[in-house]
Amino acid sequence: SKSYNITLLPGDGIGPEVISVAKNALQLVASIEGFKVAFEEMPMGGAALDAVGVPLPDETLNSAKKSDATLLGAIGGYKWDKNEKHLKPETGLLQLREGLQVFANLRPATVLPQLVDASTLKKEVAEGVDLMVVRELTGGIYFGKPRGFSTNENGQEIGFNTEVYAAYEIDRIARIAFETARKRRGKLCSVDKANVLEASMLWRKIVTALASEYPDVELSHMYVDNAAMQLVRNPKQFDTIVTNNIFGDILSDEASMITGSIGMLPSASLGAAGPGLFEPIHGSAPDIAGQDKANPLATMLSAAMLLKYGLGEEKAAQRIEAAVLDTLNQGFRTGDIHSAGHKLVGCKEMGEEVLKSI
Amino acid sequence: SKSYNITLLPGDGIGPEVISVAKNALQLVASIEGFKVAFEEMPMGGAALDAVGVPLPDETLNSAKKSDATLLGAIGGYKWDKNEKHLKPETGLLQLREGLQVFANLRPATVLPQLVDASTLKKEVAEGVDLMVVRELTGGIYFGKPRGFSTNENGQEIGFNTEVYAAYEIDRIARIAFETARKRRGKLCSVDKANVLEASMLWRKIVTALASEYPDVELSHMYVDNAAMQLVRNPKQFDTIVTNNIFGDILSDEASMITGSIGMLPSASLGAAGPGLFEPIHGSAPDIAGQDKANPLATMLSAAMLLKYGLGEEKAAQRIEAAVLDTLNQGFRTGDIHSAGHKLVGCKEMGEEVLKSI
Ligand SMILES: CC(C)[C@H](C(=O)O)[C@@H](O)C(=O)O
Ligand SMILES: CC(C)[C@H](C(=O)O)[C@@H](O)C(=O)O
Repeated sequence: SKSYNITLLPGDGIGPEVISVAKNALQLVASIEGFKVAFEEMPMGGAALDAVGVPLPDETLNSAKKSDATLLGAIGGYKWDKNEKHLKPETGLLQLREGLQVFANLRPATVLPQLVDASTLKKEVAEGVDLMVVRELTGGIYFGKPRGFSTNENGQEIGFNTEVYAAYEIDRIARIAFETARKRRGKLCSVDKANVLEASMLWRKIVTALASEYPDVELSHMYVDNAAMQLVRNPKQFDTIVTNNIFGDILSDEASMITGSIGMLPSASLGAAGPGLFEPIHGSAPDIAGQDKANPLATMLSAAMLLKYGLGEEKAAQRIEAAVLDTLNQGFRTGDIHSAGHKLVGCKEMGEEVLKSI
Repeated sequence: SKSYNITLLPGDGIGPEVISVAKNALQLVASIEGFKVAFEEMPMGGAALDAVGVPLPDETLNSAKKSDATLLGAIGGYKWDKNEKHLKPETGLLQLREGLQVFANLRPATVLPQLVDASTLKKEVAEGVDLMVVRELTGGIYFGKPRGFSTNENGQEIGFNTEVYAAYEIDRIARIAFETARKRRGKLCSVDKANVLEASMLWRKIVTALASEYPDVELSHMYVDNAAMQLVRNPKQFDTIVTNNIFGDILSDEASMITGSIGMLPSASLGAAGPGLFEPIHGSAPDIAGQDKANPLATMLSAAMLLKYGLGEEKAAQRIEAAVLDTLNQGFRTGDIHSAGHKLVGCKEMGEEVLKSI
C-alpha cells in the first residue's frame, strides 16, 4: 500500500496543540483509506530559535524538501518580536517558502451557513461568500533586491525594498489561478495597481495575454484599493482572485476576516513540482497558547488540503472536510466561533469530536 | 476684508457637477463670514488630455501653486484607461501632489448616525466609527526610483518599483499624525510591514522615536495585513492611523467603504508650507456623469476641510458641515445613500438644500 512522509512543524503558541489534533486526523483517515503516513516533527520559528538559534534549521528545511508534504502550525510571538531580521520567526517562514519554491498560495475564504453570524458583515452580505485568493508567494517586494538601509545624497538614513516581477513568475501564478477558477465558478479577478506601478503594468499585460488560453474563464482586472473596498461592499462578486505577494497578504487577510471565522480557514502553498506547504491562516495566538482553547479546525482543513493538493488523496480529504462540517452541525464550537445555543469545547475535545465523525 | 484665491479643478466624470455645487457653498459662506473668494477654474486629468494633450498642464500646476488652496472634483474614465503611463489622468494627479509637495493626506472615515444603515457591517459594529487615516502621499513606491521595465540575467522581461523612505519623510508625516491624534482621541496606530520590509523597519523606528515628544498620545503598531482585518472586525478600535503611501491607499479605501457612504467622504492633502489640495475620495463615476445623480456632499465636506485646514476659516467650515448634517436630518438623499422613507434628490437639488441650510 502507498506510504507518505509528512513533515510536521508545530512551531509556536497554539501551533503544537492544533498540529497534534490534525496529526490524529491524518492518521485516522489514512488507516480508513488504506495508505500509510509517517511523520517527522521538526523545530521551526521561535521554537527553533530557542532550541538552535535560527528560525529555520537546515534539518527542518531538508526534512520538508524530502517529504511528500509539510503541515505547519503557526509561528511567532512577543518573545521574538524585537529580534533582528535574520532572527525573526517570520524570516524562517519566508526561507521555508523560498526553499520549497512554493510560489502559489491558495487561500479560500468561505462563509459556512453554520457560522454566518460570526461575520461582522450583515447576514445578507456575508452568506454564500465562497472565494479563493491565489497569492504569489515567492516573489515581489518580499524577496526583491536591492533591499536594505543606506544613506541618500543628503546624508539621510533610508530604508528600501524592491517590488519586482519577471514575466515567468507572473505567467506561472496566473496559470494556477486560471486553472483554479476553471474548477470553481469560472471567474478570475486579477488585482494590481497598474495605474501607478510598472511591476503591476507587466502583471496585467502577462495575465491578459493568457486569457485566450482559458476562453472558459471570465477575466477581469481591479485596482487593489478598489478590491479592498469591494471585499467589504459585496464579497459575493468574487470567485477567484489572483494577485502579487504583498497585495495578497493584505487582501487574503481582509477576505478571511469577512468570513468572521479565521479559526476555520486553511491554506495551501504549492510549487511547480516538489512538496507543498500547508498551514492555517491564523497566527500563533500567544495569549491562549497552552490553554486548550485554540480552534483546531483550520489546521484540520489544512490537513485536508494537504491530502488533496499534496498527496492526491481526494477521498481522505473529503472525509476530514465532511467530519468538520458534521461536528459543527452537532453544535460543537471553540471559543472563537461560539454563540448562544452551542456547546463550548476546547481544542482537544473539538479534535476528538471530529475524529468520531470521521 | 480678507480675500483668497481658490483653484478649482473640476476634472472628469461627475467632477464638474460636484465642483459647481461646492463652489456655490464656498461663495455663500464667504459672504456670510465676511471674506472674499476668487476662483480660477483649470483643466486637469482626462479633460486636460483632451484639451491640451497632457494630464496636468503647467498652467494648472502654476495656478494651484499660486492660489491659497485647490479643490479637485475627480479624474479618470474608461476613455483614457489604456493610455500610456505619462498620458494617464492618474499621472496628472500624482504630478499635482508632487508639484504641491502635499505629503500628508488626511482621510476621515466617519459613520454618521443618519447613514449607519448604509454600511454593509452590522449596526453594532459600524455605529460610532470615527477614524482618520493619515497617509504619506509624496513618497514610497509611488515615486521611488529606480522604476520601469528591463530584462533580467535570463533575458526575461521584468517590471520593477522601489519602495523607499528617508528618515525625514517619515518624521514629518508622523508629526502630523501625532498632532492629529492629539486633537482627536489621543490614539495613534502606525501601520507597516516591519516583519518583512526594511522600509517598514525604518518607518517603525522613526515613528517610535517620536513618541516621547507626544507623551499624551498613545502609540501602537500594527502589521498591514492585521490592520486590513481589524478594520473589518472592529473599526471602532481605531482613532488615528498613520501609514505609507501604498498601504494608505488600500486601507483608507477599505475604511471608507466600511462607513458605507463613500459619497460622503472628503480628504485634505497638506504640505509643510504652501497651499493644500482638497478632494472627495470617490472617483469620477463615468457611469452617472452628466445625469445629475452624483452625491455632492463629499465635495462640500472637502470644501469645509479647505476652509479649515487650507484657509484657517474654521467658522465657515463649520457652517458647511452643520448644513450638510442638517440637510441629511431633513431626509434628503442622493441615490447612493438613499433608503426607504427618505427624499431622493439629484446633485443640484442636494446642493440647493445645503445652501438653504447654510
Ligand atoms: C508572518 C508573515 C511573514 C506572513 C506574510 O506576510 O506572508 C503572514 O502574514 C502570512 O500571510 O502568511
Ligand atoms: C488615482 C490613483 C492614482 C490614486 C492613488 O492611488 O493615490 C487614488 O486611488 C487615490 O487614492 O487618490
